[in-house]
Amino acid sequence: MRLGTVRRNGTTQAFRQEQGSTTYLPARDVGELLQHGDWRTLAGEPGPDPEAASLDQPILRPGKILCAGLNYYAHAEEVGQEVPKYPSIFTKFPNALVGPADDIVMPAASSKIDWEAELTVVVGRTVRHADEAAARDAILGYTVLNDVSVRDWQGRTSEWFQGKNWDRMTPWGPVIVTADELDPEAGLAVECELDGVLKQSGTTADLIFSAAKLVSYLSEFMTLEPGDIIATGTPAGVGLARKPREWIPVGAELVTRIEGIGELRNRCVAE
Amino acid sequence: MRLGTVRRNGTTQAFRQEQGSTTYLPARDVGELLQHGDWRTLAGEPGPDPEAASLDQPILRPGKILCAGLNYYAHAEEVGQEVPKYPSIFTKFPNALVGPADDIVMPAASSKIDWEAELTVVVGRTVRHADEAAARDAILGYTVLNDVSVRDWQGRTSEWFQGKNWDRMTPWGPVIVTADELDPEAGLAVECELDGVLKQSGTTADLIFSAAKLVSYLSEFMTLEPGDIIATGTPAGVGLARKPREWIPVGAELVTRIEGIGELRNRCVAE
Repeated sequence: MRLGTVRRNGTTQAFRQEQGSTTYLPARDVGELLQHGDWRTLAGEPGPDPEAASLDQPILRPGKILCAGLNYYAHAEEVGQEVPKYPSIFTKFPNALVGPADDIVMPAASSKIDWEAELTVVVGRTVRHADEAAARDAILGYTVLNDVSVRDWQGRTSEWFQGKNWDRMTPWGPVIVTADELDPEAGLAVECELDGVLKQSGTTADLIFSAAKLVSYLSEFMTLEPGDIIATGTPAGVGLARKPREWIPVGAELVTRIEGIGELRNRCVAE
Repeated sequence: MRLGTVRRNGTTQAFRQEQGSTTYLPARDVGELLQHGDWRTLAGEPGPDPEAASLDQPILRPGKILCAGLNYYAHAEEVGQEVPKYPSIFTKFPNALVGPADDIVMPAASSKIDWEAELTVVVGRTVRHADEAAARDAILGYTVLNDVSVRDWQGRTSEWFQGKNWDRMTPWGPVIVTADELDPEAGLAVECELDGVLKQSGTTADLIFSAAKLVSYLSEFMTLEPGDIIATGTPAGVGLARKPREWIPVGAELVTRIEGIGELRNRCVAE
């Protein structure tokens, strides 16, 4: 099953897709939809497939946006880090997010803007102190996110937050694919293209901490709730690690794709 | 003026205090109150001063909880860091917070629990790209927070988040004092007592980045909104920097006090 949010008639609406048909649902977004206990079978109206350009963020204001860093072996190596013993966790707030076809707003204050294609977990159930099996059960599904990063600001201090939270720089979507249909541990291709040139090509089989391990780890110290999202980190191929370094130019088109989920397609426009 | 939220009749209610009188207002908390354009003069019902034990968090779910680290000269020195050129920013989510008289929940997974008394800014107006004067105008007021930290988890990676976001470990309040009544740059005493022993005694005059500077800096990259809060960092005297190191024992009472605002008084109880 796929879940998403479409811009429609001046507002937004959640939809569900299964077996080739789309049902428009009585909820403003997937976050509101998840508050219905019976969301999997909730009655709605059949309709046409939404166009890619009409999609909004699946959840309009996620309660928590958690991100793991240094979580692929080849990426940890390319940035000169040892294989970590623990996940590095940082965060975003909703002001950083945009939809799967929206413009990415390039700041005037930096030209060191980098790409980071990431498999992203959507939490479906409230959990705390979850072992790995319980954590796996708490995963609603998976989506795509590009953790577009302002590298000079990210490197100003030990805390990466200020390079990761610029307004409207982090696209995500296009839909959430439920966990029964997708197994990241078996390996899903993760790709990032800049103006048609492939920059990242990894597989989720190379994640150091799997989706379920991340959910379990986070739940050791904090309660996770339905609609919280967890970006799992990026594979090798970021601009920072290239020789010479490469950055996203204003005007570029960034495409972020994960096998079995879909793609983000965003124009990078000046502030 | 003082603004706060009280637990009352099985729900919560915002109140305003000025010239010695308390007015109970038609809002569930100060966050909801700020949505009224006329909140400074909004009609309500006079009533008795709320008791300290009945106070809830001033804002029940702040939209953003931003925290500056290493922001007092003597604290940067005691943890062996240079005076920073830029603020270090990390974050919390609302699950980490408790009210000014609530229990702090001590995790079973760590015994290295430390105190960090902090002046905390409450944003009153939406701002982006604010210079220091505009940033000062955007400050609604000030409150108290103790960034109780799980030091071993904080030190597991470069990102401090996982030491700072344990459920129900961060008390804040008791009220918000509006900015017209308080000038942190002139110097307010910041104190932390553990079981009646003074552990921290600093002054906000020693902040490296002032409240207005922090608001201005953050607004360079992100939109700040009414009800967002910014903990400004802790003065010297944390347990981590003591020789030998000291930690908060289960059962302790932690008191956190800022001159002109008030105090938090929290019992540290086992999970």
